Amino acid sequence: MSLSEVRWIELPHVPDERGVLTSIEAGIDIPFDIRRIFFMHQIRAERGGHAHRFTQQVVLPISGEFKVDISNGRESASYEFTDANRGLYLPPMIWVRLFDFVPGAVCLVLADTHYDRGASIRTWDDFLAEVASAQASQ
Amino acid sequence: MSLSEVRWIELPHVPDERGVLTSIEAGIDIPFDIRRIFFMHQIRAERGGHAHRFTQQVVLPISGEFKVDISNGRESASYEFTDANRGLYLPPMIWVRLFDFVPGAVCLVLADTHYDRGASIRTWDDFLAEVASAQASQ
Repeated sequence: MSLSEVRWIELPHVPDERGVLTSIEAGIDIPFDIRRIFFMHQIRAERGGHAHRFTQQVVLPISGEFKVDISNGRESASYEFTDANRGLYLPPMIWVRLFDFVPGAVCLVLADTHYDRGASIRTWDDFLAEVASAQASQ
Repeated sequence: MSLSEVRWIELPHVPDERGVLTSIEAGIDIPFDIRRIFFMHQIRAERGGHAHRFTQQVVLPISGEFKVDISNGRESASYEFTDANRGLYLPPMIWVRLFDFVPGAVCLVLADTHYDRGASIRTWDDFLAEVASAQASQ
C-alpha cells in the first residue's frame, strides 16, 4: 500500500456564537460507509501498534492533541493531530502508532468494517512478512 | 412519538493500562446504520433547540459532561450526560435541548440519515403543530 493514499480530509464545520459543529456525511465527506466507530479516552500510554488488512479508517483528534506515526513497511510518515476539523484517511495495511496524547485527549476513529480481530496484524514482524508476501505475489 | 423509546445504550468498552477504548458497531450496538456523525465542540452556549422528522440519533458525551432536556410535545424528560461509555437513543420527532456543558465538553451524535435541513423542525410552535397534526391523523 502506497503512503500516497494517506491524506488529510478537511471536515465541514460551522462555527458560530454557540461554538463549533463539525459534521461527517458517510460516503460523501469521507470515502466509505461507516460500519464502526471507536474512540480512545482516559489515555495513559501509546495506542495502536497494529495494522488492519482490509479496513479503511479516518482518525481525528475530537478533543486535545496527539501524534501518529504510520508505515507501510517500506516508507514511514509522522502527523501531528491538532485540529478537530481535520481527519487523516488511512487505507488498509498501514501500521499505525498513536502517542504523545495531551491530558484529556480523545481520539475518534471511523472505520468501514465491523471489528474482526483476525483481520488485524498484531506484530511488526508479521506485518513486514505480509507486506513482503503481497509484493512477491504482485 | 412516545418517550418510552428513548433509552440509554451501554457501549462496549475495554479499559486497560493504556486507557479506555469504547466502540460502536453500527446496526449492532445501536439500532441503525450510521449515515452521518457530527460533534459539537468549543461550546459556549446551549445547543439543539430543534427536532428531526425522520432521523434517529444516539447522543454521547465523548468528552466532559452536559445535560439534555427532551420533549415529544406532551411529556418531557431530563438526562445528565456524564459517562462517555453510555449514549442516549433518540427516535425521530423529539425536541432536544443540550445545555450546561462543562468547559472543554464535546458532544458526539450518530445519525441514521444524511443532513437535510428541510427535515428538521426549527421552532417549538411548529413542533407542537406537527405533533398535534400527527395525532389528529392517527
